[in-house]
Amino acid sequence: MPLRLDSRDADFPAAFTALVDARREADEDVSRDVSAILKRVRAEGDAALADYTARFDRHDLNVSGWAVTPAECRAALEGISGDLRDALELAAARITAYHEKQKPQDSDGVDSAGVRLGARWSAVDAAGLYVPGGRAAYPSSLLMNVIPARVAGVSRIAMVTPTPDGEINPLVLAAAQIAGIEEIWRVGGAQAVAALAYGTDRIRPVDVITGPGNAWVAEAKRQLYGVVGIDMVAGPSEIVVVADAKNDPEWIAADLLSQSEHDPTSQSILFTDDTAFADAVAAAVERQIPRLSTHAVAATSWAANGAIVLVRDFDEAMPLVDRLAPEHLELAVDDPEALFAQVRHAGSVFLGRMTPEAVGDYVAGPNHVLPTGRRARFSSGLSVLDFMKRTSFLSLDQSAIHAIGPAAVALARAEGLPAHAASVALRLQ
Amino acid sequence: MPLRLDSRDADFPAAFTALVDARREADEDVSRDVSAILKRVRAEGDAALADYTARFDRHDLNVSGWAVTPAECRAALEGISGDLRDALELAAARITAYHEKQKPQDSDGVDSAGVRLGARWSAVDAAGLYVPGGRAAYPSSLLMNVIPARVAGVSRIAMVTPTPDGEINPLVLAAAQIAGIEEIWRVGGAQAVAALAYGTDRIRPVDVITGPGNAWVAEAKRQLYGVVGIDMVAGPSEIVVVADAKNDPEWIAADLLSQSEHDPTSQSILFTDDTAFADAVAAAVERQIPRLSTHAVAATSWAANGAIVLVRDFDEAMPLVDRLAPEHLELAVDDPEALFAQVRHAGSVFLGRMTPEAVGDYVAGPNHVLPTGRRARFSSGLSVLDFMKRTSFLSLDQSAIHAIGPAAVALARAEGLPAHAASVALRLQ
Repeated sequence: MPLRLDSRDADFPAAFTALVDARREADEDVSRDVSAILKRVRAEGDAALADYTARFDRHDLNVSGWAVTPAECRAALEGISGDLRDALELAAARITAYHEKQKPQDSDGVDSAGVRLGARWSAVDAAGLYVPGGRAAYPSSLLMNVIPARVAGVSRIAMVTPTPDGEINPLVLAAAQIAGIEEIWRVGGAQAVAALAYGTDRIRPVDVITGPGNAWVAEAKRQLYGVVGIDMVAGPSEIVVVADAKNDPEWIAADLLSQSEHDPTSQSILFTDDTAFADAVAAAVERQIPRLSTHAVAATSWAANGAIVLVRDFDEAMPLVDRLAPEHLELAVDDPEALFAQVRHAGSVFLGRMTPEAVGDYVAGPNHVLPTGRRARFSSGLSVLDFMKRTSFLSLDQSAIHAIGPAAVALARAEGLPAHAASVALRLQ
Repeated sequence: MPLRLDSRDADFPAAFTALVDARREADEDVSRDVSAILKRVRAEGDAALADYTARFDRHDLNVSGWAVTPAECRAALEGISGDLRDALELAAARITAYHEKQKPQDSDGVDSAGVRLGARWSAVDAAGLYVPGGRAAYPSSLLMNVIPARVAGVSRIAMVTPTPDGEINPLVLAAAQIAGIEEIWRVGGAQAVAALAYGTDRIRPVDVITGPGNAWVAEAKRQLYGVVGIDMVAGPSEIVVVADAKNDPEWIAADLLSQSEHDPTSQSILFTDDTAFADAVAAAVERQIPRLSTHAVAATSWAANGAIVLVRDFDEAMPLVDRLAPEHLELAVDDPEALFAQVRHAGSVFLGRMTPEAVGDYVAGPNHVLPTGRRARFSSGLSVLDFMKRTSFLSLDQSAIHAIGPAAVALARAEGLPAHAASVALRLQ
């Protein structure tokens, strides 16, 4: 049974705080294992990759091949149904259109002191994309990671993906073909992330690594943050649905289950102002679970991490939602705009009754790689900016340095940095 | 003696690669110490802070006081010279003006499928600023960190700074007063970073932590990345100066030394196309060093990490500079614009002979917190964006979900996620 809270209860503040503070992230101490893997790949390169792949994925890269060939990707795309191909192409086109609007503007101008000041954005040279094998091998994730890099103007995109027992998901290859990825390595885990960061004889190093993965992959990215750029520290997926009694309980139940079915650690939380509606949604969830092919995961996740929070009204709900800073937030009410105006922290917000979160997972356009575990307090979904960097620039002439140089000399001297002061003072003579 | 390389030499490629790959970052294994400090502060809060402060900074917080009072800051500002106050105020005004232009634009619109799509930026609730004590207690750094947070709209800014033996730099307090900081805690080191991230009874937690520090502080920020947002993984400062023979060797020598004097691990590199000029700069550096109050640091840094690279021409230099991806790049040539067009990776670029890097450290306006250690390949200087996050949003009506919903259903089914499919399909009935 999921947690059930009522804001009218005396113990509500403590119980809600416990919900906010509950950690759903793997407490597994993988950091030592990962650190050893990174060191070994850095020292031994491809030999370490081959060894780890034999051990964890049970195939010999020197037999099965290190790379997926373009011909395999073309064949995979030709092998899927027309409907699916159309769906992938619609998704790619819409994601591209949304991300095009994220491209930052350069600036350049001369101010009243005669100082020229500006900023110039440019793409990183190379991006590495991790694509999981197994349960979480999602072509939609591939598109969501590659397209922002493409829009940013990244010229080289290298993908890594584990192929357990040599098998690879053809839908992922079809998506790779649509996204135009030409470099795909059949390696996974922390070792693949290390190869992308440090480079090996076969795999040239990249500048930024993005993409979802298990606890080892996430920890590898965290440890290599600074050697390369990374997208974010990602945790289990989550949704908060704010819904009034005018919604169809079946719809809201499906929305909650669309997170629960991801992983046993996923979290789905309903906020509602109506007890009977809360009961109806809870009943609909129980009815729907057995019909899902993902029922085992969904049932575990809903029972362990699901919650229904009964509030007096939605003005009371919104500050509570902000404390959760959810990855996904559905506002299924008559006037979602009014509630959205009160939201400070959320990764992505789905406005109104006809906007289920899943439409954003696939085809709406915004990125589905979003901050989890309350990180929407300080971070944003994946974007074009994650694949770009900004160079500031300035230029002074004789008049400009006379205008602002003396202040620099005064501050440098006060900070005890005489060469700083001299480099300006010499030009003022 | 600094390294001297000539691109005409047969061993140049290998020698330059060695220069690029040389690590100047502390190899000291502080990660275990830091991890223990973080755990203890998380568990014991203020008691741990008091204990570490007694041990490392040699004063008792319960006697000397936990916080710096607003009165102390006002007194510090009143105690400095008018020139210095004017310089700080000019710096603050110019830094504010530059960062105002970084404020991102929200987006909101309806596309041809009838889908409303947008993105809304908002500030984090609270930012924590680390200000070092001792050698690197720079009021300029304080301004460079606080002002972007203020411009972003952060409502709470909490500063931490160690006060070894109870002493605090009055110039830092004066800058804090100018920047309007009202919350200053007299704690430093990894323990202060932990307090900002986790919160204690006295210090409420923040969402983003920025500011320079020693190896312990840097490692604490790295380990807490994900619990909070951080500015960047920072390493020793560095400058590359590209200069032709028309420059005054004394000016260029001072520019090189303005990095060398920061820290023994700092790096200054000159690229020039003229042997005699290279010799003249080298001689000027040797002449200037003994005159500096920072001569011991500058001499060590220049000898250990300095380099002069002789190139045939500057078109040859620019790809080499890009491999270094320097924090600071001075282009002291007749047509700096032409060289700047070739730069792909640099934190900040200083165009022309009258633009010494030090002017950017203090009063020009762009941020002086910049990526080091080749990280300009993938990251940017501190900006308003580091204190903001973006929430994407979308809204579909019945017509829009009929336009794009079927593709979402197809993809969800292909990915084996039936609740995702159901949440859309139910709304299509």
